[in-house]
Amino acid sequence: MNRVSIHFLPDDVKIEVPYGTLLLDAALEAGVFIRAACGGSGACGQCKVRVVKGSVEALMEEKVHAAARAAGYVLACQTRAISDVTIEIPLAKVGRKVIPRDEAERMRLTARPMESPIVPEPDPMTIRVFMHPPAPATHDNVSDDERLMRTLKVEHEIYPVAAGLDVLKQLPHEARKEDWEFTAYLEVETCHDTHNPWYRLTRVQAGHPSYPSMALAVDIGTTSLWGELVNVDTGEVKARASRYNPQISMGDDVISRIVYALKKDGLERLQTQVVKGINEIVEECLQKSKLPVDCITYMVAAGNTVMTHLFLGLYPKYLREWPYVPAAHNVAPVPASVLGLNLPPQTHVRVFPGVASYVGGDIVSGVLANGMWQDEEMTLFIDIGTNGEIVAGNKDLLMTASCSAGPAFEGGGLEFGMRAAPGAIEGILIDPETFEPMIRTIDSKPALGICGSGIINIISQMLKIGILNQNGKYASDAKTPRIREGRSGLEYVICWAKESGLNQDIVLTEVDLDNILRAKAAMFSGYTCLLDKIGLTVDALDRVIIAGAFGSFINLDHAVTIGLLPDIPREKFLFIGNSSLKGARLACIDRKLYQKSREIAHAMTNVELSEDPTYMDNFMAALFLPHTKVELFPSVQLGQ
Amino acid sequence: MNRVSIHFLPDDVKIEVPYGTLLLDAALEAGVFIRAACGGSGACGQCKVRVVKGSVEALMEEKVHAAARAAGYVLACQTRAISDVTIEIPLAKVGRKVIPRDEAERMRLTARPMESPIVPEPDPMTIRVFMHPPAPATHDNVSDDERLMRTLKVEHEIYPVAAGLDVLKQLPHEARKEDWEFTAYLEVETCHDTHNPWYRLTRVQAGHPSYPSMALAVDIGTTSLWGELVNVDTGEVKARASRYNPQISMGDDVISRIVYALKKDGLERLQTQVVKGINEIVEECLQKSKLPVDCITYMVAAGNTVMTHLFLGLYPKYLREWPYVPAAHNVAPVPASVLGLNLPPQTHVRVFPGVASYVGGDIVSGVLANGMWQDEEMTLFIDIGTNGEIVAGNKDLLMTASCSAGPAFEGGGLEFGMRAAPGAIEGILIDPETFEPMIRTIDSKPALGICGSGIINIISQMLKIGILNQNGKYASDAKTPRIREGRSGLEYVICWAKESGLNQDIVLTEVDLDNILRAKAAMFSGYTCLLDKIGLTVDALDRVIIAGAFGSFINLDHAVTIGLLPDIPREKFLFIGNSSLKGARLACIDRKLYQKSREIAHAMTNVELSEDPTYMDNFMAALFLPHTKVELFPSVQLGQ
Ligand code: FES
Ligand code: FES
Repeated sequence: MNRVSIHFLPDDVKIEVPYGTLLLDAALEAGVFIRAACGGSGACGQCKVRVVKGSVEALMEEKVHAAARAAGYVLACQTRAISDVTIEIPLAKVGRKVIPRDEAERMRLTARPMESPIVPEPDPMTIRVFMHPPAPATHDNVSDDERLMRTLKVEHEIYPVAAGLDVLKQLPHEARKEDWEFTAYLEVETCHDTHNPWYRLTRVQAGHPSYPSMALAVDIGTTSLWGELVNVDTGEVKARASRYNPQISMGDDVISRIVYALKKDGLERLQTQVVKGINEIVEECLQKSKLPVDCITYMVAAGNTVMTHLFLGLYPKYLREWPYVPAAHNVAPVPASVLGLNLPPQTHVRVFPGVASYVGGDIVSGVLANGMWQDEEMTLFIDIGTNGEIVAGNKDLLMTASCSAGPAFEGGGLEFGMRAAPGAIEGILIDPETFEPMIRTIDSKPALGICGSGIINIISQMLKIGILNQNGKYASDAKTPRIREGRSGLEYVICWAKESGLNQDIVLTEVDLDNILRAKAAMFSGYTCLLDKIGLTVDALDRVIIAGAFGSFINLDHAVTIGLLPDIPREKFLFIGNSSLKGARLACIDRKLYQKSREIAHAMTNVELSEDPTYMDNFMAALFLPHTKVELFPSVQLGQ
Repeated sequence: MNRVSIHFLPDDVKIEVPYGTLLLDAALEAGVFIRAACGGSGACGQCKVRVVKGSVEALMEEKVHAAARAAGYVLACQTRAISDVTIEIPLAKVGRKVIPRDEAERMRLTARPMESPIVPEPDPMTIRVFMHPPAPATHDNVSDDERLMRTLKVEHEIYPVAAGLDVLKQLPHEARKEDWEFTAYLEVETCHDTHNPWYRLTRVQAGHPSYPSMALAVDIGTTSLWGELVNVDTGEVKARASRYNPQISMGDDVISRIVYALKKDGLERLQTQVVKGINEIVEECLQKSKLPVDCITYMVAAGNTVMTHLFLGLYPKYLREWPYVPAAHNVAPVPASVLGLNLPPQTHVRVFPGVASYVGGDIVSGVLANGMWQDEEMTLFIDIGTNGEIVAGNKDLLMTASCSAGPAFEGGGLEFGMRAAPGAIEGILIDPETFEPMIRTIDSKPALGICGSGIINIISQMLKIGILNQNGKYASDAKTPRIREGRSGLEYVICWAKESGLNQDIVLTEVDLDNILRAKAAMFSGYTCLLDKIGLTVDALDRVIIAGAFGSFINLDHAVTIGLLPDIPREKFLFIGNSSLKGARLACIDRKLYQKSREIAHAMTNVELSEDPTYMDNFMAALFLPHTKVELFPSVQLGQ
């Protein structure tokens, strides 16, 4: 894609961005402050800038007077750069302070986005075979199942094949509907000894299929569900969808879900809820891809151990009682109908195996996708989801632990926290002089709340400009109406009600800050403890791979500033996004990778941090921004 | 068992019988006529005989006057021989004619009873393993399923093991109920390539099982259901039960059942009915054996192809339409709960594979049991059930056909026909002078009808004494009130209403006779046609094995006389009884024999007799007693 250069004045900052980037996004990335109170939705009219040179394309002009328009003014959030441009930010704004160059530079540093290095060879779990055997005749009147088996063997070299009652009940009908032209669906199994394949007939359908064979990859998160519809023969993702896990109404985190599950009918209700959410995802994916539900031949799901238990209806009680024992990690494929999924009845659902009560199939799936199981490089893999799981090691050794970080970085447990969905405040820049925020929401929707990466950004900046102290408390003497007394102590108003998509001010309270402090302390002490077990410090790491359902990026400098990520060279950080979903997709495309995931799960050694006396000491020491031991974060300069 | 000798006067016939045999049964076997109108139930008082010498034990004496008792008179049907005895049959009876010696001798000839020559090595389909792994601890907190797998592998060398969701849902509960003492049920599967075993966990149960592991062997007949509860480790049969197939109310024969199945909800209703019958058998077996239902670990069923389809709910339409194609022969194990069986939910049901639309799993099971698949001897195997299936061959070749004989020999389609159950007239001897019958019922119950062996006996005797001609019509000039004009032509009264267990006369009509004639003609032309395909005649046979749910025996001379069995040396005949049930029992004990049955089914070549032009000619020629070609039955002498 063509790139264009944007030169911001008076800051004199230049940035290269893709052709067509909105000026507001370019400014945010460059660390150049522009007033933007409505999240970029075009509603507040505050983000006016003047185009000094170059070509732009304005999407909406109503908020700019004709005279101003004539003078080159545009809304930064509604204007795309379509050539190299020079932009002037009005000096009219009181006390606007230019952010120092080096700092702005650092603020642009995000972890390099990383795709999975694993290249699947398309090898579906269920194959589809079009058949047209000769019709029965006097001297060839074998049973329908034998006719099918014979054709598979002779014409396709597919044997041996086992068939269950459900599909055999359908066979006489489907075979004759289109005069012995039909499609057989065969699940590929592997002989334990020889690894030769054998097959299980799971579906027969009249005629030639007019659509590709698809699989559904699902990430069952505590907070969110993510699904992808994948073409099993090409690996192409045809549609994606996500939504909150409907279980949220039964508890924010895994512990409260387990508590709910142990109530009368609780497990059943939780199971029904998550299946409802997945069914909605299926429906959305089918609508988007314009494919019929029949196209789905199997599903692979990855989730943490609690989510996997609740999805399958496995008894979760012993997950949270010492010594934290899961009911099962290795579940044979489950028919979709048994789970209540709206998929073709014999569609089999496989889940990723877990490692321990709090290191589940989502982490195994993530490790499968991030490739650390096959690489030499010493890797730290951090999934900043609801639990905060970490894996350290390489192809020779994989150690894992869970930090009980809680859902703060997924927006859980915060007054206005939300997941990275349209309307979530994701990008934020605070004017160091006026303490006014410049906010950018996902999909330019009026702000509804703040998501994980937004939270990291705002805390880091508040810390740097001194309106937040290192204990996570607001400076009560800050001269801004944005910091005020709220219902539970001081709070900072990120977005006023009138500029938001809500009827109330969006705030960040000190209770929220405390939650985040605990979450980041849990993560930090978790991975330092785990590395300690291997005899390493963070400096020995070749790379840190960050996973999580954040927004589009996590700002490294901000994440280091709050003490969430270790203070090591920034080029070592990679961001893989939702690696659990990526691993599920890989398994959908290549059944050998699903097999591999079982080996990975087996190879991973779990460390129970709660049993480790040093963990709690580490945790207490990390309840400070960035840390009580300042020497651990040499690059963090908190200028006042 | 001790045997005693019984000497009948004035006939001067001697017979050896087991100690304690009833005098009436001895007379019947000896071909000595005693008046016995009530079937041996002690009700008619007509069977009085005088004990001349020796010791007897009288079970009931009311019907004999004190004076007569003092003179040595007893009821033959209520008196056991407990030493060698001499018995005098009163001459008072009008016109009693002594049956010629050689004929009486021949009448005693039954096929030698045959047990299955196959000796199973106990090798159950599902094994039960008692386990007591260490309880979870801090440094041993693997999941419950992994703890189970590990124990199975390390302590029992059982691996690999797959486990489905159902059983894994139970595992946490059952494992902890008795403090990690529990029993695992593992279905043994075999690798297709190496034949090494692998296992499927099907049940877990707290504690040590306090009862043996049992399997249920079931024969699903068109007319009757038979079940046996078998100890899978010893092969011992702990209980047996049988009853009519409740589907009978939806049609006597397989064709009418198929017709019913194609009506709305018909298939579902038929399936429900047969399952109801099997559930009753299960209950009866459990009551008899005083075992809990939990003892049942699996079930093996054998039935003809139509019965198997209706039991499983497979669509039967194409079974009866040219070219007669079954839906499926090879069905993977079906969970009992899917079929509605009242067995533990994950109890798997296996059915015997069939060969063709009218040669089903019952015949394959019968062949497995009779051993002809492993023997050199050229064998004809005849199952005189509802369909009349035949198999000819030996270990090198197995050919099979079905004769559509209909249910006449199971009592179906006859006015007073019934299966071999209590109250069925089984033994019958007709006084050649008076044409009065001496009847013996099963279990000495008042007569309710006549069963297959009774029918063969009565027709043969009526033919010999000339009250029935070779076209199967009664001699209208016979001087006996027993032959009379009935609702549908002439009929013979076998038992008067007052002596029966019914409120009406039990008769055999000419319509009944026609049914039987057609049934025996179908059988005869069937096996001669089939042998012809192999290039053999009946004389080349080394043995004829007769199966069928007859009474305790089939009288060879009578069966040859009516032209049902071939007229070959009588020592070549063997009677195996319900070989379908026997085969199912063998499979229950030794899973390798179930595997063998699949090979047998595969090796059997089916001949569609209806497609064979010579079959119909043969059939027409056989519609005569014994046959239009008298030279085919040289030993049959019809004295008038
Ligand atoms: S109008 Fe552009 S940010 Fe509000
Ligand atoms: S009383 Fe003995 S047969 Fe009737």
